[in-house]
Amino acid sequence: MKVKDIGEFGLINRITKKPKDKDILVGIGDDAAVIKTKKGLQVLTTDSLVEGDHFRREWFSPFQIGMKAVEINISDIASMGAIPKYVLVSFALPNDLEVDFVENIYKGMWKSCDKYNIEIIGGNMTHSEKIVISITLIGEVDNKNLALRSGAKPGDLIFVSGHLGNGRAGLRIFQEEIKGFENVKKGYLEPKAQLKTALKLSQYVNSMIDISDGLAPEIRHICNESKCGAIIYKDKIPISEEVRGAAKRLNEDPYDYALFGGEDFELVYTVSKKNIENINGFLVGEITRKNDFLLSNKGKEKKLTKNGYDHFF
Amino acid sequence: MKVKDIGEFGLINRITKKPKDKDILVGIGDDAAVIKTKKGLQVLTTDSLVEGDHFRREWFSPFQIGMKAVEINISDIASMGAIPKYVLVSFALPNDLEVDFVENIYKGMWKSCDKYNIEIIGGNMTHSEKIVISITLIGEVDNKNLALRSGAKPGDLIFVSGHLGNGRAGLRIFQEEIKGFENVKKGYLEPKAQLKTALKLSQYVNSMIDISDGLAPEIRHICNESKCGAIIYKDKIPISEEVRGAAKRLNEDPYDYALFGGEDFELVYTVSKKNIENINGFLVGEITRKNDFLLSNKGKEKKLTKNGYDHFF
Repeated sequence: MKVKDIGEFGLINRITKKPKDKDILVGIGDDAAVIKTKKGLQVLTTDSLVEGDHFRREWFSPFQIGMKAVEINISDIASMGAIPKYVLVSFALPNDLEVDFVENIYKGMWKSCDKYNIEIIGGNMTHSEKIVISITLIGEVDNKNLALRSGAKPGDLIFVSGHLGNGRAGLRIFQEEIKGFENVKKGYLEPKAQLKTALKLSQYVNSMIDISDGLAPEIRHICNESKCGAIIYKDKIPISEEVRGAAKRLNEDPYDYALFGGEDFELVYTVSKKNIENINGFLVGEITRKNDFLLSNKGKEKKLTKNGYDHFF
Repeated sequence: MKVKDIGEFGLINRITKKPKDKDILVGIGDDAAVIKTKKGLQVLTTDSLVEGDHFRREWFSPFQIGMKAVEINISDIASMGAIPKYVLVSFALPNDLEVDFVENIYKGMWKSCDKYNIEIIGGNMTHSEKIVISITLIGEVDNKNLALRSGAKPGDLIFVSGHLGNGRAGLRIFQEEIKGFENVKKGYLEPKAQLKTALKLSQYVNSMIDISDGLAPEIRHICNESKCGAIIYKDKIPISEEVRGAAKRLNEDPYDYALFGGEDFELVYTVSKKNIENINGFLVGEITRKNDFLLSNKGKEKKLTKNGYDHFF
């Protein structure tokens, strides 16, 4: 069996061991790990950007690569309700890369770090054929603000923090070398972590996750960890006119982008009805008692599979 | 100017910013970063292994890749006098890699982690053409045991914790496809962090660093951070008979391996004369007041340059 047959989460399930140390509150399986310190709770996450897979030098400026490397990690810390503090950077770089290029990656990293008073405290450099940037981000959170994937309850309403589908739409526009659609391109090149929104939400939500893999798999993660089901209302998923325009130009379905595209870095969160007046966001579904995972469209319900949904219902 | 022209430390010097946060005791420039928490001092390091550059699947079993990925990070934490606690793993994996292969990398990681009661608390998986394993290791240290690069004083004696040169000798034996030399090969495939030794030493040393890049550049790091010079006694550098044998077979200089080869993961540390009776190790040199960086051989002294030394003196 190969990695592509089992996927990221199959692989993680197969190799994960339950932590023994009682100071580890959350181990592998959420957006970030949580450990208990006397200062409070520390939240730790790591993520890598690989040249060719996550960025191409023809599309991204080095500054944008640096920003994206940091923002995707801030997004993981934000979705835990935590405040990001310290960054470690592990760089693998080709020998013939221009020093200016690396310096501009760093400037991009600092741009995103400075915005949130995050400090780059350490790192490492090594050689490789393609650029690989691995970032570890450490944050802090109060117990009352900690937002996990596992806290969703039947009856919770599901919200997203913003419009979806831009990540995939931008990628497709670049891949097909289509002119125009500058805002869609910019949304793809310069994703922004929703930190302020997350910190406002964290005390009111029962569960929260950031959208790196598409709305459907993210809600599925919440359901798996919370042992419940969900129904997503297709026509409530917020998709901008520009993303719809890009999809139309590409002759593709913008709901595919939103549900399965990923790289939007908006938040999806579930809220008890009593807390709804305290939060903002776009209502997109509801947590159910049953283990079903459904997409509702104009009153009809269909099962959502891992590979997508039936476009024609 | 390209990355290869300026090197790792040139690049780090060019992009490093001084941290503003007063809780950051040590930022970029040591084996690990140190931040103040109410529990004590936390030590954080990150390092990557890149397929083709740091390992080859023909030479290493997946179990050995996993062990090495963890041991090289433990080595960085150990050289700070700290106790390793938590690991984050960021994996970039080819789609057609066998799941068993990944599982065995993890088993190797756990083998090294279990030895020291370290827990793997989180991580991330993504796609790439070649295997890249980025590990972040977090440890704890008491202030009195913290060992930095910057504490060396003129008159300190310089010691190493074990025999040097095996890292490079093993690599060369594999590269030239030479049969035999099984212990040299094993030393290269399965390096061990000197954690127990480091914890015994830490309260007595003025400075300490682990040998990932060769004895000469590591002592140079200590001198740069401590603003002093050093003299290394060539004939006191401990090199095993087996490494000497491998060098002879390859028609190369074993002192080249020890001084510039790297990947030995032994410790080099400097100690005031009054503390010598408390420590073990091989005496290899002395810290001097002058900014010189010298190699002494049978009473003659020569400057050590970044590119090596004159083999014929």
